[in-house]
Amino acid sequence: VDVQAVLGGDRRALSRCITLVENGGETAQQILAALHPHTGRAHIVGITGPPGTGKSTLVARLAAALRQRHLRVGIIAVDPSSPFTGGALLGDRLRMQNLAGDPGVFIRSMATRGSLGGLARATGDVVSVLDAAGFDVVLVETVGTGQAEVDIAQAAHTVIVVVIPGMGDDVQVAKAGVLEIASIFVVNKADREGADRCAAELRLMSGMGAAPEGWAAPILMTVATRGEGAEEVVEAIISHKRSLQQTGLWESRVLANARRRLLAVAQDLAWRERMASIPSSVMDDMVRQVATYQTDPYTAARELLATTKGKDAKTAGVAAGGDR
Amino acid sequence: VDVQAVLGGDRRALSRCITLVENGGETAQQILAALHPHTGRAHIVGITGPPGTGKSTLVARLAAALRQRHLRVGIIAVDPSSPFTGGALLGDRLRMQNLAGDPGVFIRSMATRGSLGGLARATGDVVSVLDAAGFDVVLVETVGTGQAEVDIAQAAHTVIVVVIPGMGDDVQVAKAGVLEIASIFVVNKADREGADRCAAELRLMSGMGAAPEGWAAPILMTVATRGEGAEEVVEAIISHKRSLQQTGLWESRVLANARRRLLAVAQDLAWRERMASIPSSVMDDMVRQVATYQTDPYTAARELLATTKGKDAKTAGVAAGGDR
Repeated sequence: VDVQAVLGGDRRALSRCITLVENGGETAQQILAALHPHTGRAHIVGITGPPGTGKSTLVARLAAALRQRHLRVGIIAVDPSSPFTGGALLGDRLRMQNLAGDPGVFIRSMATRGSLGGLARATGDVVSVLDAAGFDVVLVETVGTGQAEVDIAQAAHTVIVVVIPGMGDDVQVAKAGVLEIASIFVVNKADREGADRCAAELRLMSGMGAAPEGWAAPILMTVATRGEGAEEVVEAIISHKRSLQQTGLWESRVLANARRRLLAVAQDLAWRERMASIPSSVMDDMVRQVATYQTDPYTAARELLATTKGKDAKTAGVAAGGDR
Repeated sequence: VDVQAVLGGDRRALSRCITLVENGGETAQQILAALHPHTGRAHIVGITGPPGTGKSTLVARLAAALRQRHLRVGIIAVDPSSPFTGGALLGDRLRMQNLAGDPGVFIRSMATRGSLGGLARATGDVVSVLDAAGFDVVLVETVGTGQAEVDIAQAAHTVIVVVIPGMGDDVQVAKAGVLEIASIFVVNKADREGADRCAAELRLMSGMGAAPEGWAAPILMTVATRGEGAEEVVEAIISHKRSLQQTGLWESRVLANARRRLLAVAQDLAWRERMASIPSSVMDDMVRQVATYQTDPYTAARELLATTKGKDAKTAGVAAGGDR
């Protein structure tokens, strides 16, 4: 892939590059290594909340408001639960905002890749590509509020939690599981009955945790379908970035994210190495023993690892045991 | 912990045992090893679907219907997104069904344990404990339809996907992401408008995939608040078990589950071992390099692993390199 073209803003090269990065493997790692020095400038904003809260519409409005400020906007729509939804809907919203042909906006949808860890990692990698390609703000929309969304949101500098009135408020808020990591709350569809009560409940629940230094998450009302409130959300996003930078929390978020990504990749690599050293006949035998209730998974796992450790040592010409 | 008491049906011992198993570590592994020979008899039934579909009410009704058949019922309410909800609600439902004091019913709620992998593993372990304790059917209720729920549901023999009419049908069904693994579909709140259309859409979507041998997932209507349809769901659960056993799919599910659990545990153990061999100063330095964009996570991970491999070899008195 032509890394210079990606850095230069060539959209075709960018698309191809993201596909290669999503696919993973050697090529992806080479691309990411080449792009990495150019990353670290984008403001990464996660948008999460239950299905049906109008996140795609809000994201389209935020993108339009950010474009008014001449900021380049990358958008990633992540759907951990399904390959069917997410990106297409968001694409429609962007077309309605006349942003589809705007070279300052780039949208990409990502669906489940078999495992959650895999999805969170791939999302982080695609964020890095957009960051390197010079997008000032990267909006990452996730659907739902499970652990996957929390993992993905944690990689963001700013996290927006979107709720709507009358959805069983206490339940949806409690469910968010992202109260602790929310930087900004948005009550969308605020023209509906119960919006004030919804906001009050959010205020109560978010007050239960300790507010991170110098920042109390604001609770903003929007009617995204009509664009109402989008400008205020963008202002809050920018204020939050300033607050993070002033308190030094920006650096600590970057550091925490670097640790998380490094550990995830290292764990994955280490396991691949290890797996490659286990003969499939040994593995199959162990699986059979667990399946027939002759041994439990923990005992079997220890035996499996002990086998390969012994084998490694033998290959290296050392007697097993007593090496630490 | 007194394993004999657990096997003998002592509820207090069972509660304590589950807590220890949830906490993990050496004790958990010893308990699971002792209980493992007594497992493999329970029929594990996963119940999943979006929030607000009445799963807890349905689970309470299913438990009551199973008790009518004198089957002992274990219930695990898993909420991957939050520590606040799930178990309490289900407990209320059971009290309404007069099942709370029934020694033939045991309920346990589990919330997020930091990581999804951790939750799926802990859930599998608690299922094993209830299995060993002699519960004939273990109902595992998960909230939401993300990858976590799919992972947890995959460990079940029978998977029930619950939806309701008028929730944006195509979206909720598409989102389920569990179409492929659904054994039984339930349209709950079937007295609402649109129930027939909802069922028709499910029929259409489930027909798109290839039906597993000998079993086409039935689409059943329930009004769980009034108990309507619960008996039919229980009949479908029992029919599905019979079908799995006749086609040999029961064994292959057990085998696949054993493989999944073994791999998850082995990966975790292997990584702990490996991590223990990495000095925290080396780790911190690598994290700093990634955070300051001097190196990318993939290159850093490879260097990190290479360091410890070298160190291991040195400790064992062997020159590094060339060993495979």
